Amino acid sequence: MADAQATIRWLIAEKDKAPNFAMRVIEIASRGERIPLHAHDYEHEIFILDGAGMALHPDGDRPVRVGDFVYVAPGEKHGFLNTGDEPFRFICVIPIQK
Amino acid sequence: MADAQATIRWLIAEKDKAPNFAMRVIEIASRGERIPLHAHDYEHEIFILDGAGMALHPDGDRPVRVGDFVYVAPGEKHGFLNTGDEPFRFICVIPIQK
Repeated sequence: MADAQATIRWLIAEKDKAPNFAMRVIEIASRGERIPLHAHDYEHEIFILDGAGMALHPDGDRPVRVGDFVYVAPGEKHGFLNTGDEPFRFICVIPIQK
Repeated sequence: MADAQATIRWLIAEKDKAPNFAMRVIEIASRGERIPLHAHDYEHEIFILDGAGMALHPDGDRPVRVGDFVYVAPGEKHGFLNTGDEPFRFICVIPIQK
């Protein structure tokens, strides 16, 4: 996530002996800040917790709000933008790299 | 979850071609309703979304509230109880059974 304007808090990870996947909370603090488009070879499962934002995608961005979820497939380009007045926060679950 | 007083909504699962894990939202609607103690051979990663409840455990129950997370290891007994006036809702991520 080069140039990402975001903080990541790891809730559950390898340190907890979690065998398969890790749960993080990602926060983009202020309006206009973003995680630019990028891709990984693994998937994300995302659930929006607070604030308002856009899910960025080469095929078109879409607004997301509290309670929405986003599946990002392995290799799929994606990013996130805060479009609200509050911190934009979401859960992001990824596989543990073995 | 025999006798569970809960509903499960699958957000992201095998139908989405998710390769490794599934994201669900579990709701226990009313105060006093519960998912009784039980265990699986796989882990849960849980994040509390709404309401108030107790994480039930043979070693002692503990109160949980919005923003808390719970790691349940494979084989560990666990359950949940709604202790509030609103629906008690949480994200629960599990591995996809291969």
